Amino acid sequence: MSADERAPRPGDAPFTERTPRVVAARRLTRRSGRDRAERFLAEGAQAVREALAWAAAGRGRVHELFVTATAGARNPELVREAAAAGVRVSGVTDKAAAVLSETVTPQGVVAVCSSVDVPLDVALAGGPRLVAVLHGVADPGNAGTVVRVADAAGADAVVFAGDAVDPHNGKCVRASTGSVFHLPIARARDADGVFAALRGAGLRLVAADGYAPEDLVTADLRGDLAAPTAWVFGSEAHGLPDEVVDSLDAALKVPIYGSAESLNLATAAAVCLYASARAQRA
Amino acid sequence: MSADERAPRPGDAPFTERTPRVVAARRLTRRSGRDRAERFLAEGAQAVREALAWAAAGRGRVHELFVTATAGARNPELVREAAAAGVRVSGVTDKAAAVLSETVTPQGVVAVCSSVDVPLDVALAGGPRLVAVLHGVADPGNAGTVVRVADAAGADAVVFAGDAVDPHNGKCVRASTGSVFHLPIARARDADGVFAALRGAGLRLVAADGYAPEDLVTADLRGDLAAPTAWVFGSEAHGLPDEVVDSLDAALKVPIYGSAESLNLATAAAVCLYASARAQRA
Repeated sequence: MSADERAPRPGDAPFTERTPRVVAARRLTRRSGRDRAERFLAEGAQAVREALAWAAAGRGRVHELFVTATAGARNPELVREAAAAGVRVSGVTDKAAAVLSETVTPQGVVAVCSSVDVPLDVALAGGPRLVAVLHGVADPGNAGTVVRVADAAGADAVVFAGDAVDPHNGKCVRASTGSVFHLPIARARDADGVFAALRGAGLRLVAADGYAPEDLVTADLRGDLAAPTAWVFGSEAHGLPDEVVDSLDAALKVPIYGSAESLNLATAAAVCLYASARAQRA
Repeated sequence: MSADERAPRPGDAPFTERTPRVVAARRLTRRSGRDRAERFLAEGAQAVREALAWAAAGRGRVHELFVTATAGARNPELVREAAAAGVRVSGVTDKAAAVLSETVTPQGVVAVCSSVDVPLDVALAGGPRLVAVLHGVADPGNAGTVVRVADAAGADAVVFAGDAVDPHNGKCVRASTGSVFHLPIARARDADGVFAALRGAGLRLVAADGYAPEDLVTADLRGDLAAPTAWVFGSEAHGLPDEVVDSLDAALKVPIYGSAESLNLATAAAVCLYASARAQRA
């Protein structure tokens, strides 16, 4: 089959929300469906472009692409690129695109991708120097934004530990703006096992903890942040449990110079990860 | 009237969504209504507590407090504190609280406050060293998060310049988690006038611009960030217009060490403002 044969042709009837392949893909909007199929949905032209690049690099697979007539007309090169890469491309109705979408305004272009997460030992291979750990973070938008920040700060991996959100959640994927495809992501329920593996990889485990007595500037001036570091972040609502903070190598807060009570998760992570990234490059 | 007389009493019929004072307050959920009345709504126990502290410091006024039976029972000290401060406290039905709310789950406690913004010259009085300027930022959640970050980083003021969101927008107030009450906020449509006033206050104007050739670490190592600085941030969707960037004293990007295309507005602002805060304290 040539690339042209894989792309939808003008005469083809678009898939509806009742077409079996759309019905199957729709199950991926739920965590149970994603876990079972080990696939997820990447929605929007930018996410699909990132997914194709990730697959082209041999890091995963794009199984198929659904595209509405409007989105197809707007992104002809994306459709061509997908077809050329051997991805099955199917036209869908606007309603079918809507049932596959987790956004208010469906983008009209959705890829079915294999899961991005890799085993923890794979994520930590190759001497990581900066890792972000999300411990029990439940909000997908926050988690995705931290993945984006970790990617920007040059982190080597992101680990979702404990009872955390699924990194393949639509809101997480969207908030990451493609970063879920850029750096290794691992998931493990057993947080103690994660911490042991991080230590085994030579990383110093630092809790980002708004209640810590010491702030990261003080630690940085002492040279602590230049060491290979895994920053451990807790949920925005509850922070890190005391027993987790106590089990790590250090706890540091972002200094609050004004009257705010705290920073939100993503902005705190930005300050922490960039402080380490800078110290490691100095 | 004693404080006790101001609080709603068990026999009082709660206000409904048709009670004139609730109808008047509801107009404050729209920008036109807020602009006309020069008042806005602060919802939730935390925001109301911050509003009362702000009023107690003589920086503004809380005109009245609406509270549902459930929220009143949960926050008796807040109701007492408001009444003791001379604030008119009225019981409202759940439905009335819902029409005053801009959240999915109404908090049941809403204060009518005088606007927080002050004239630009007032915001810039007293030799400011760190100011955040939001230029044309339209998303209220992003704007509120930047106000929170600016507060945390010890900024002296936040200026909403150009065609920007109203800082009193419910989502902005909520995202700021009380910070709109902590530091001076000014608004001005005329961005050039804002920049002139900032220069007049001795501040160096730095554009946060993802396309700038130089990054903030390089500038910091040269000592540039220790100077009194106004960081100018553009909208997340469009960034800063070229002519604005060209009119400022410098443009700096947050370095991207990994594969992310960019940071979002709030995380970029966190890295920029904290870099200055730290340099100024070194």
